[in-house]
Amino acid sequence: MNTKQPTDKPEIILTGDRATGPLHLGHYVGSLEQRVALQEIHEQTILVADMQGLTDNAHNPKKVSSNILNVVADYLAVGINPLKTTICLQSQLPALAELTMYYSNLVTISRLERNPTVKNEVQNKGFERSIPAGFLTYPISQAADITGFNATLVPVGDDQLPMLEQTNEIVRKINSLAGRAVLNECRPLLSNSPRLPSTDGKNKMSKSMGNTINLGASEKEITAAVKSMYTDPNHLRVKDPGNIEGNVVFTYLDAFHQDKAYVSQLKEHYQRGGLGDGTTKKVLEECLQDMLRPIRERRAEYLSDKAQLIDILAKGSQISREKTEKILFDVKEIFGLNIF
Amino acid sequence: MNTKQPTDKPEIILTGDRATGPLHLGHYVGSLEQRVALQEIHEQTILVADMQGLTDNAHNPKKVSSNILNVVADYLAVGINPLKTTICLQSQLPALAELTMYYSNLVTISRLERNPTVKNEVQNKGFERSIPAGFLTYPISQAADITGFNATLVPVGDDQLPMLEQTNEIVRKINSLAGRAVLNECRPLLSNSPRLPSTDGKNKMSKSMGNTINLGASEKEITAAVKSMYTDPNHLRVKDPGNIEGNVVFTYLDAFHQDKAYVSQLKEHYQRGGLGDGTTKKVLEECLQDMLRPIRERRAEYLSDKAQLIDILAKGSQISREKTEKILFDVKEIFGLNIF
Repeated sequence: MNTKQPTDKPEIILTGDRATGPLHLGHYVGSLEQRVALQEIHEQTILVADMQGLTDNAHNPKKVSSNILNVVADYLAVGINPLKTTICLQSQLPALAELTMYYSNLVTISRLERNPTVKNEVQNKGFERSIPAGFLTYPISQAADITGFNATLVPVGDDQLPMLEQTNEIVRKINSLAGRAVLNECRPLLSNSPRLPSTDGKNKMSKSMGNTINLGASEKEITAAVKSMYTDPNHLRVKDPGNIEGNVVFTYLDAFHQDKAYVSQLKEHYQRGGLGDGTTKKVLEECLQDMLRPIRERRAEYLSDKAQLIDILAKGSQISREKTEKILFDVKEIFGLNIF
Repeated sequence: MNTKQPTDKPEIILTGDRATGPLHLGHYVGSLEQRVALQEIHEQTILVADMQGLTDNAHNPKKVSSNILNVVADYLAVGINPLKTTICLQSQLPALAELTMYYSNLVTISRLERNPTVKNEVQNKGFERSIPAGFLTYPISQAADITGFNATLVPVGDDQLPMLEQTNEIVRKINSLAGRAVLNECRPLLSNSPRLPSTDGKNKMSKSMGNTINLGASEKEITAAVKSMYTDPNHLRVKDPGNIEGNVVFTYLDAFHQDKAYVSQLKEHYQRGGLGDGTTKKVLEECLQDMLRPIRERRAEYLSDKAQLIDILAKGSQISREKTEKILFDVKEIFGLNIF
C-alpha cells in the first residue's frame, strides 16, 4: 500500500464504487489494496454508489441492482473487514439526496459544464446535449456523499481531482453561509501505484470491451485473458530483443509478482532476446492464478450467503444513516429549516 | 369557486406555494378560494415549498424560513381546514428529494432548457448562464412533489402547464420502465378567475415592488394600496367619461365585490362620466376592508400560537411522509433497489 500523504492521525475517509459491474484488477491496484491498509488506522466508510450508477443507466437499472452484492462480495474477498470499515448503500441514505438538493442551489449549470471530469465523460459517452440532468449534476451528489460523512480524506485517481475541488467550493459556500466551519474541506489521497492498463493495452478497462480481469474471474478466464494480453508487437521471434515499455505482461508482473528481483531478471532477459512471450505469460498466469484463487473462493463463499451480505450492508447503512442525518441537520440549520 | 373540469369523483390534489413571502390577494383569487372549495370533495394536500423557495434564494435563506409559518397562517385564515386538507412542509419529506434524484436520470439538460416556464423565469431573474442547478432542475423536483402524492389533479395557472407536461413525461417513462402504471398522469385544474393584476396595473405582483395587498395587510396598508391604484390615466375630470378597461379598481371590484349589479351600475356611470376615481376607490376600499378584516384577525390569532401552527404542519408532514415513502418504495422497486 502506498500513500503520498502522511496519515498518522486518524482521518475520516469516504470512498466507494459505482455498482455497475464486478470489480477487477484495476480496482484492486488503484484502491482496494489501499483501503485494506487504511481501515487499520482510519475511520473508513465505503459507499456502494447505486444511485450514481443510475445516472447513466436509468434505462438499464439491472446493470446496477444486479451488481450491488457482487461489489460487496468483492470487498470482503480482498480483505475489507466490515468490523473496521463501514460498508453502506447510497440509496439507503436519504440525507444524501436531501443534501444534494440544498447544494444544487449553490452551484451554477455553467460551473458544472466546466468540470473537466464530467466534460470528458460526456464526450466518452457521446451524450452531448442529451446528457441526463442527473449525470451533469453528479459532482453535486458526490459532494453530498463526501460531506455527508464530513470526510477529511478521499482516495481518488488524479482524474477525479476536479470532483474534490467542486466539493470544497460547496463546503466553503456552506461554511460562509453558516458563519462557521460546519463542514470539513477534504483532501485527496492519491495512490502511488500507477494506473493498471487494460489487457489490450489500448483502451480504458471496461467490461464490455472484455479487457479486464475481474476479481472473481474463473481459472479459464484468467488463462484466456493472459493469453490475449498485449505485449511487444515487434517481438516476432523468441531470439529477438523485446520491448518491455507498454508491454502489458510486464506491467502486470510489476504490479502483482511478489519476487521483484525475478521480474527484473525476466525483463533483462526479454530485452536481451531469447525470452518468448509464451514464457512470460506463463509466469504471469501462475502469479495471477495464485493470487486470485483465494479471492475467487472467498467471493463465491460470500455470494453463497446473500442474507449475510445484505445484513452487512444493512448494518453499515444504519450506522451511515445516523452520521449523514446529523450533517443534514447542521446544513438545514443554516437554512433555518429545523422548525420541528 | 370556478373550475373548468367536472370534479364529481374524488381526486388526489396536490397544490402548494413557495414560502418566499406572505400570500396576497392574487393567491386568494387564483387558488386559495378554489382550495377551500376543493377540500370539501377531494383528497387535497398543500405543500409549503421551502426547498423550492431556496432554488433562487439560497444566499438569503431567511426569506424562506421566516415565511413558512406566515404561509400556514394565511391558509388557515382563509378557511383551509387542516382536518380536510393535509398541510405539509417539503423539507420534511425526504422521499421527494430521493424521487428527484431518480427522475433526474430520465430528463436531459436540453429538455429542461426548453421548458418555457423556466426559460421565462431565467430571463426575468437575469440568471443567464449563472443559473443555479437547482433552479434549472426544479421542474424535476416539482414532478417529484406531484407524483410523490400520486396526484391526479393539479391546480395551476396556464403559465404552469409546461410543468405538468414535464411531470407526465416522467410518469410515462417510469411506467414504461415498470411495465405497468405505477404513477398517475396528472391533469391541470385551471381556475376560471382571470389573473388579478398588481395594484400598479403594469408589473407582476411582487412584494419588493410594493404592488400587492397581502392577506394580512393592515387597515392603513389597504387604504394606501387602494389610494395608489392604477385607474384610467386619461380620466382627468370627474365629469369626463372614464375607461374601465385596464382600470385596476374595477378589476378588483369585479373580483371581490359581492353585489355584482351595483358594480355594473358603477361601471356604466364611470363610462358615462360623472363618477370620480375617489368614489370608486372608496367603494373598493370598504369592500376590501370588510373582506380582509376577519382574515387579518384570524391570521394574527393563528400567528400568536406558533406551537399550534407547527403542530398542524408536523402532523400533516407525518401523514405526507407515509404517503410519499410508499411511492418512493414503488419507484425504487422499478430500479431493483429494495434489497433490504
